Amino acid sequence: MMWDWNRWIQNIEDVNTEVLAKAQARWNSIAKPLHGLGKLEEMIARIAAIQGSVIPTLKKRAILVMCADNGVVCEGVSQTGKEVTAIVTRNFTRGETSVNKMADVVHAKIFPVDIGVDADLQTEASDLGNIPLFHRKIARGTKNFLIEDAMTSDEVLYAIKIGIDLVKICKDEGIHLIGTGEMGIGNTTTAAAITAVLLDVSVEEVTGKGAGLSSMGLQRKMQVITNGIQNRRPNPTRPLEVLQKLGGLDIAGLVGVFLGGAMYKVPIILDGMITAVAALLAKRLCPMASKYMLASHLSKEPASRYILNELGLHPIIDGNLCLGEGTGACLLLGMLDTAMCVYENCTTFEDIAVEHYVEME
Amino acid sequence: MMWDWNRWIQNIEDVNTEVLAKAQARWNSIAKPLHGLGKLEEMIARIAAIQGSVIPTLKKRAILVMCADNGVVCEGVSQTGKEVTAIVTRNFTRGETSVNKMADVVHAKIFPVDIGVDADLQTEASDLGNIPLFHRKIARGTKNFLIEDAMTSDEVLYAIKIGIDLVKICKDEGIHLIGTGEMGIGNTTTAAAITAVLLDVSVEEVTGKGAGLSSMGLQRKMQVITNGIQNRRPNPTRPLEVLQKLGGLDIAGLVGVFLGGAMYKVPIILDGMITAVAALLAKRLCPMASKYMLASHLSKEPASRYILNELGLHPIIDGNLCLGEGTGACLLLGMLDTAMCVYENCTTFEDIAVEHYVEME
Repeated sequence: MMWDWNRWIQNIEDVNTEVLAKAQARWNSIAKPLHGLGKLEEMIARIAAIQGSVIPTLKKRAILVMCADNGVVCEGVSQTGKEVTAIVTRNFTRGETSVNKMADVVHAKIFPVDIGVDADLQTEASDLGNIPLFHRKIARGTKNFLIEDAMTSDEVLYAIKIGIDLVKICKDEGIHLIGTGEMGIGNTTTAAAITAVLLDVSVEEVTGKGAGLSSMGLQRKMQVITNGIQNRRPNPTRPLEVLQKLGGLDIAGLVGVFLGGAMYKVPIILDGMITAVAALLAKRLCPMASKYMLASHLSKEPASRYILNELGLHPIIDGNLCLGEGTGACLLLGMLDTAMCVYENCTTFEDIAVEHYVEME
Repeated sequence: MMWDWNRWIQNIEDVNTEVLAKAQARWNSIAKPLHGLGKLEEMIARIAAIQGSVIPTLKKRAILVMCADNGVVCEGVSQTGKEVTAIVTRNFTRGETSVNKMADVVHAKIFPVDIGVDADLQTEASDLGNIPLFHRKIARGTKNFLIEDAMTSDEVLYAIKIGIDLVKICKDEGIHLIGTGEMGIGNTTTAAAITAVLLDVSVEEVTGKGAGLSSMGLQRKMQVITNGIQNRRPNPTRPLEVLQKLGGLDIAGLVGVFLGGAMYKVPIILDGMITAVAALLAKRLCPMASKYMLASHLSKEPASRYILNELGLHPIIDGNLCLGEGTGACLLLGMLDTAMCVYENCTTFEDIAVEHYVEME
């Protein structure tokens, strides 16, 4: 694998702390209670610090949706069969999914990526729509982690590189802000397995019903994860090894997106539990990367809370969402636009001749 | 007071439960995980049931911003002086406040209401902007509840009637959805006092720093509230009495807005703590009224959590907001639009020939 991992990570810099302080000061000068817009003020200031500009630009935004299949699905860990991954991936290109509709409302582009769908989506017969699909297939899904490693180490590194390169493509297209999304039947199973190992939390605590398992199905899912971890024995201190043995190609690609955000100074918005696991892996590989992340929502999947705590991120949406695709990231985009309008255009205390609110202990 | 209170309340009906069931069924037919948009699905279905139409209309929306002064401010319970109420009320009419900017983004109209500002806002010299101010002044602020009842019982009933009538005006203008907002220096003090009495919770638990009090200021605020409650001795089982003795004209007007929503079948969105207290009073007066309410955010003010629990409402925004004005309600409007686009336009399982997800135990 011709890819100098360490060189990249060493190049990642902190956000611009001078701009961060200026952005916070600007919020405090606006005629309203101090910190009145709470987490939204913090997020706008963070975006300013990432972009290196006190007035950041949110105009062009994309949702990168990583699509991939998971070998472990043959163990019966999901309500639907794996064919749904390909069906929904096609629908991303036709503008027919939930995230397509939501992205339209917040003026975001959907960039669907086939990084490992178990279907041929590149031939004429693949029946895609007008939205371009990024053909980056590494394999037709991962292997079943219950009986063998999900990926080879080369596949992991290649998938991460694909994520990084997609951020570069976005940056070159003038995208100011990237939301993450995913589609892959079985990916709450792979994500829960990685979370249990990385955070040393019990499988029971981090495993949820995904897209609607029965209670019996949930029991089976937890057993498969427990057995898979026992069989694979990944070293919890080696994030790449954990990812290789248990993880999905979608998650690996998303790790690259988070690292790419830090490299190319583009804010990356988390969506639900799957994207949060990728963010955690990226932070384990490069702690500085977490400064380029923005949390959107606390997912219904129980792992979400553990991971966001570990990342030190504070989601503003608490909606019991469990849809994936980047839908939570879209919701945050709308809120950021609303807050940005206050940040850019509001009168200051000076304008209205009222004394500043002051920080008090 | 020529106003038949009981007649109105008896006329309030339940929402349309048949439409509610149909709306839920429609959500379940959309090709995505069951309940994947969580609380947003519930809110859209609730709005459908209120409007009596499976596909509700969210197009025309207004934020009713009740502005009033509070006599208790002379006790030093706020960081700024009461003159700020009039200044900000004027700025609502000029489009210069935070809620004006946010409302622009989500295409909502701001309806500022002078229901008790301690300033002359009706003369030529009052220097208002182009956005019409509803002149509904009942008094130039309330009395100081530490030494006398804040309002007379006629003033309370009149203020509630004003709120109800404003909903009627909105309804006649074709408004589909109303957000609540308020501006009144000192109103976290009156709201905390009412909450402590109605919920029988200690003053310490429901009192926050408002727009940035010091810790010493917070102590003073709690003492004033405690003494005020002792001096006024309102009967906790009589919501109108509690409101009359402790409350603000803004809160009384908002009680009317919540009752009016239930009367005229217009969904009413809560904003922060002040509007939540008004919602609680409305529910105590008429339990059915809570079915016409939608929670937006969990405010930074500690009373918010207690009140929303009591109302059985589940806010989707957890943003540490403490701005008031209707800013949280605006944020919810944007999210509802995004969810509505999925509800209206998404493909169903039939469309894509995938089996339905089914509800499992």
